[in-house]
Amino acid sequence: MDTNNRRIVLARRPHGMVGPADFRLEEAAIPAPGEGEALVRVIYLTLDPYMRGMMSDGDSYADPVPIGGVMIGGTVGEVLESRDPSLKTGDVVEVYGGWQSHVVAPARQMRRIDPALAPISTALGVLGMPGLTAYFGTLHVGQPKAGETFFVSAASGAVGAVAGQIAKIAGARVVGCAGSDEKVAYCLDDCGFDACFNYRTCGDIGAAMAAACPDGIDVYFENVGGEIGWNAFWLLNDHGRMAVCGTISNYNAVTPETIEDPMWRFITRRLKVQGFLVTDFEADAANARAELAGWLADGRITWRQTVVDGLENAPAAFGRLFEGSNFGKLIVRVGGEPGTA
Amino acid sequence: MDTNNRRIVLARRPHGMVGPADFRLEEAAIPAPGEGEALVRVIYLTLDPYMRGMMSDGDSYADPVPIGGVMIGGTVGEVLESRDPSLKTGDVVEVYGGWQSHVVAPARQMRRIDPALAPISTALGVLGMPGLTAYFGTLHVGQPKAGETFFVSAASGAVGAVAGQIAKIAGARVVGCAGSDEKVAYCLDDCGFDACFNYRTCGDIGAAMAAACPDGIDVYFENVGGEIGWNAFWLLNDHGRMAVCGTISNYNAVTPETIEDPMWRFITRRLKVQGFLVTDFEADAANARAELAGWLADGRITWRQTVVDGLENAPAAFGRLFEGSNFGKLIVRVGGEPGTA
Repeated sequence: MDTNNRRIVLARRPHGMVGPADFRLEEAAIPAPGEGEALVRVIYLTLDPYMRGMMSDGDSYADPVPIGGVMIGGTVGEVLESRDPSLKTGDVVEVYGGWQSHVVAPARQMRRIDPALAPISTALGVLGMPGLTAYFGTLHVGQPKAGETFFVSAASGAVGAVAGQIAKIAGARVVGCAGSDEKVAYCLDDCGFDACFNYRTCGDIGAAMAAACPDGIDVYFENVGGEIGWNAFWLLNDHGRMAVCGTISNYNAVTPETIEDPMWRFITRRLKVQGFLVTDFEADAANARAELAGWLADGRITWRQTVVDGLENAPAAFGRLFEGSNFGKLIVRVGGEPGTA
Repeated sequence: MDTNNRRIVLARRPHGMVGPADFRLEEAAIPAPGEGEALVRVIYLTLDPYMRGMMSDGDSYADPVPIGGVMIGGTVGEVLESRDPSLKTGDVVEVYGGWQSHVVAPARQMRRIDPALAPISTALGVLGMPGLTAYFGTLHVGQPKAGETFFVSAASGAVGAVAGQIAKIAGARVVGCAGSDEKVAYCLDDCGFDACFNYRTCGDIGAAMAAACPDGIDVYFENVGGEIGWNAFWLLNDHGRMAVCGTISNYNAVTPETIEDPMWRFITRRLKVQGFLVTDFEADAANARAELAGWLADGRITWRQTVVDGLENAPAAFGRLFEGSNFGKLIVRVGGEPGTA
């Protein structure tokens, strides 16, 4: 059993592409829970693209992590000690614990999860924030109708693959793009997409997208921004909708890109472009998670994750999200399964 | 009484700023109505910015006017002869008659208007397409709530002034910008705006806008595009909405403008930007017109028009929309009042 809390803090604000030198591993005493709190041993830590924004002090929807502060993020772990009647030792919980081996937090900020329902790491993936993001972005923002064309970028990713499968359930024709032939095959063969192309090898991205979407795009689920995102925008049909979830292609950019002014196009096609955060839909999260769990149990939704071993490897693994070398939900195994500590 | 139909046709597709040389005045025989049709003597013709788009074969929501074709547009006139039981000689109607002195159309495409309700030219303004555009763009797209800041560009215009007054009725703090001190005074004194600035003399437009909107912008009613439009976009608050009605600043542009890529901002502020056409809301038009007429009767909405005499002066007058030298709804008087022909 660990005697110290191992944690990864932000060493400096990254300039351009994030890298291991932007982080630092520290050790500290394991904190003790106060009244109403619990101490959790972290088992899994999720790595998500949004964390890049939290490392910079530029435009964002939340304050950045301070220099020297523990990196933020969702975790799944086992309760070691509880000072709240709602939790007991051995419970498995989801908590926004950050990049560390142990966390103390109010019990009301922890969500108990049922290990019999699905592997506990799915609480950070298809049944967690990425799955809920896909759910709300697709069904509440994009709202694909049967027969419409739904296009999603980063299609094999933790959000994209779920969004595409939900759009299939809604009856849409689902098209995606991804960064390797293996990812394209996953979207087609495992996720049931109707079409998918490799944006790295397709040549002209606009032409490849138009060929894959011969009837145009009715709903675009935006994960990447940049060239792919704007090509999809210009392919939107009358009354097309765009659910803007992420723009990962420019999270490490130092200077803003310029684009052709799109404003007139909003009128000619009567477009709706809407940005969203999963936290905007918190009131509906429990229902959404239950519906996702049902689709998982039915086999209507599949998921895929890549697990990296060891908290100390999180900084290097994080960069893989932006290189495109990660496949599916990226998870760090911080400690052993429940009961093994 | 005229013996010929005088009409203005599109002589050529304009390159850059539209001008009188792009039009040609022709005469032709007055057409005779067929079964189910009526012949109307045009009294008023409306000139609206959207007509510029119909002169070019670029990206639009409708096919352009062919070279040699009669310019399109809304008119109000008097029925001279009817071959449909729904209309009789002397009725005053609104009809999409175009830039000409006489028009034959199916009676079912004509809307009889009540001259006792308001001056008949308002059927082309506050009680017509511009008023309905303001109504739907404000209440259905932008949806300002009490206490929110509503910003509108081209604020003294046929659409902008009505949009701002409707947002006032909805309880918003209403701010505008316009192109002369006289227009600014009209917005403040007659339309009841809370603030308004002259974008031609204010210096830095972004700074002037921020000063006039100290709490940011919750709803932006976009009429102009370009520098004003994008400054307003970047001032939108969390969950801000933008109703994109027009982008008049670039209707005469030869090459597209470039802008800073705004996609990430959609997420950080959870913005919704939506383009619309008044025709998308046709099913609700009668109710909306009735509500507007009520506000007009109550004195809660005021309106202003500039009338130019003579169909032959329509081409020169049309350019005033893009120079900003027009004030309020721009109308051409094509013929005498009902009963005077």
